[in-house]
Amino acid sequence: MSPTLADLSEAELLKRLARFAPPDQLSDDTAAVPSDRRPLLINTDVAVDGIHFSDATTTPTDVGWRAVAANLSDLAASGAVEIEGITVALVAPGRTSWDWVDGVYQGISAALGQYGGILLGGDCSKGEQRLLSITALGRLGPLRIHRNAARPGDVLVTSGPHGLSRLGLALLQDDPSVRDIDLPSTLRDKAIARHQKPTPRLEEVQQLLACKPEHLPWRAGGTDSSDGLLSAVVGLCNSSGCGAVLRNDQLPVSEGWPEGSPWTDWCLAGGEDFELVLSLPGAWADVWQQYVPKSQRIGQINAEAGVIRWAHNHEQVDTGGFDHFGQP
Amino acid sequence: MSPTLADLSEAELLKRLARFAPPDQLSDDTAAVPSDRRPLLINTDVAVDGIHFSDATTTPTDVGWRAVAANLSDLAASGAVEIEGITVALVAPGRTSWDWVDGVYQGISAALGQYGGILLGGDCSKGEQRLLSITALGRLGPLRIHRNAARPGDVLVTSGPHGLSRLGLALLQDDPSVRDIDLPSTLRDKAIARHQKPTPRLEEVQQLLACKPEHLPWRAGGTDSSDGLLSAVVGLCNSSGCGAVLRNDQLPVSEGWPEGSPWTDWCLAGGEDFELVLSLPGAWADVWQQYVPKSQRIGQINAEAGVIRWAHNHEQVDTGGFDHFGQP
Repeated sequence: MSPTLADLSEAELLKRLARFAPPDQLSDDTAAVPSDRRPLLINTDVAVDGIHFSDATTTPTDVGWRAVAANLSDLAASGAVEIEGITVALVAPGRTSWDWVDGVYQGISAALGQYGGILLGGDCSKGEQRLLSITALGRLGPLRIHRNAARPGDVLVTSGPHGLSRLGLALLQDDPSVRDIDLPSTLRDKAIARHQKPTPRLEEVQQLLACKPEHLPWRAGGTDSSDGLLSAVVGLCNSSGCGAVLRNDQLPVSEGWPEGSPWTDWCLAGGEDFELVLSLPGAWADVWQQYVPKSQRIGQINAEAGVIRWAHNHEQVDTGGFDHFGQP
Repeated sequence: MSPTLADLSEAELLKRLARFAPPDQLSDDTAAVPSDRRPLLINTDVAVDGIHFSDATTTPTDVGWRAVAANLSDLAASGAVEIEGITVALVAPGRTSWDWVDGVYQGISAALGQYGGILLGGDCSKGEQRLLSITALGRLGPLRIHRNAARPGDVLVTSGPHGLSRLGLALLQDDPSVRDIDLPSTLRDKAIARHQKPTPRLEEVQQLLACKPEHLPWRAGGTDSSDGLLSAVVGLCNSSGCGAVLRNDQLPVSEGWPEGSPWTDWCLAGGEDFELVLSLPGAWADVWQQYVPKSQRIGQINAEAGVIRWAHNHEQVDTGGFDHFGQP
């Protein structure tokens, strides 16, 4: 049987966790990050039991993978070309089994193995609820993608379909809204995989850098869709002082995605798909889309500050967001 | 009356928090940290309600100050000469009042104002228990102080007295062990101040750098005493493959500190005094002590790996530590 955290001395716990980092990496009060002329990007994201994961829907390995992926997705959406590493703060009750912690750190290691970077350091504390707070550091490439850098005339493109993670969650929870629906099994599998093991879009950023038309400056607006597609578009528009027109016949959904409720809502506001949402000059978007087959053009940026409209009827899109602190 | 977090929209909460950072600092997915040739030091520390702070002993401002100070203390103990900034992950129940959050961030700002650095970014989430997870970045100076760099023949010095924070906690909790004791009022005040508003020893590190005797190389073992003085000495010895001899007539205590139980234990293992514990060649320690009047020589490093002894009777020191996940 797995020991609980309360069974392990602090020294023993730290020894076990140190196996997930390079030799001697966790042997001091701090970690050193080598420096060169390129700025570092930094991002912090928390994942809380019952909100961002649960035993019913997320294996320990997936908890770790997802927490890293959420952070790296933010780094990608800012133009990171290299991941330096992460620090992990782990809070958990004493009754938590070591096996759960071990699984979480295996997921963390797997994600770092896939995308680069090391476990730089961290902290552990007892607490009533299991949670991870991860801070990720990445190296900026030649382009700082920024939420405030959309410009009227840009086209809005995304690196892939949306709603899959929300569908995956519904399937894992055996939600009534999906119980009697005849979905293609490939869509089901894709949705569950997306929910459990999302992909930060670091490669798609590399492609964006590689394909910039020479006559264009290094300027691109962008963010990731962690809080949902619409929330990403709203964030871009508000930060850039722009508006957007979205085409409801160009919603970025997967093959076989049903129409109507709740499917359109899940595409627009399901969240946690961790795709890039970019605002680019048309010529750059065109060539990027050739490299990223799942990318989709979803609309256009205009000068109507803070307003998102549907193209077909010019009505304003309802942009109510995910409420972090409200009642569930 | 203060609104609760559940009353505030996410946008409103982020707007309020953004006031604690430079303009536009929190406007994107990530923050950029400028780069030069000096490595960055990174450190993460969590502060959990009921473990690291409580409404009974810690004002909201002190919660923020302490959380920053704990992080900066680790950076100091690694040789940081400049603080770049911090990210803050805040987890709290929806019923938490804005006033509490506001106070915490005021304490964070006050500490950054005092020691340098900015609020670089962060994250917020609902959770059952209030906690802060802070990651701090600092710039390394010419000396990497490291826990593994103590050498036999070094002297052990600390930047100041120990046990004060533990005494302050006991006084704030009206603990029976201090209720009927006649302590000098200056000692009481100092202890409470130390508990509520500890000082990261960044200045003392600057002095260490400034006073190195020319003939000595840039090598110093060190850590901070966040988990207690003995725990710091054990950490130094274990990481460096050395042992230590401590003189019980040279325990680093404040003027007026009583003898016996629990006073000696509080000095050795009270924790959260956030002093530097350094292992230095005698000549360097001598000159540093002239610059740091509260510093004290507490013993010597030797080659007896992993063993801490009392100088007067050569018995091994009992080094049981603070157990992070055990029952309280």
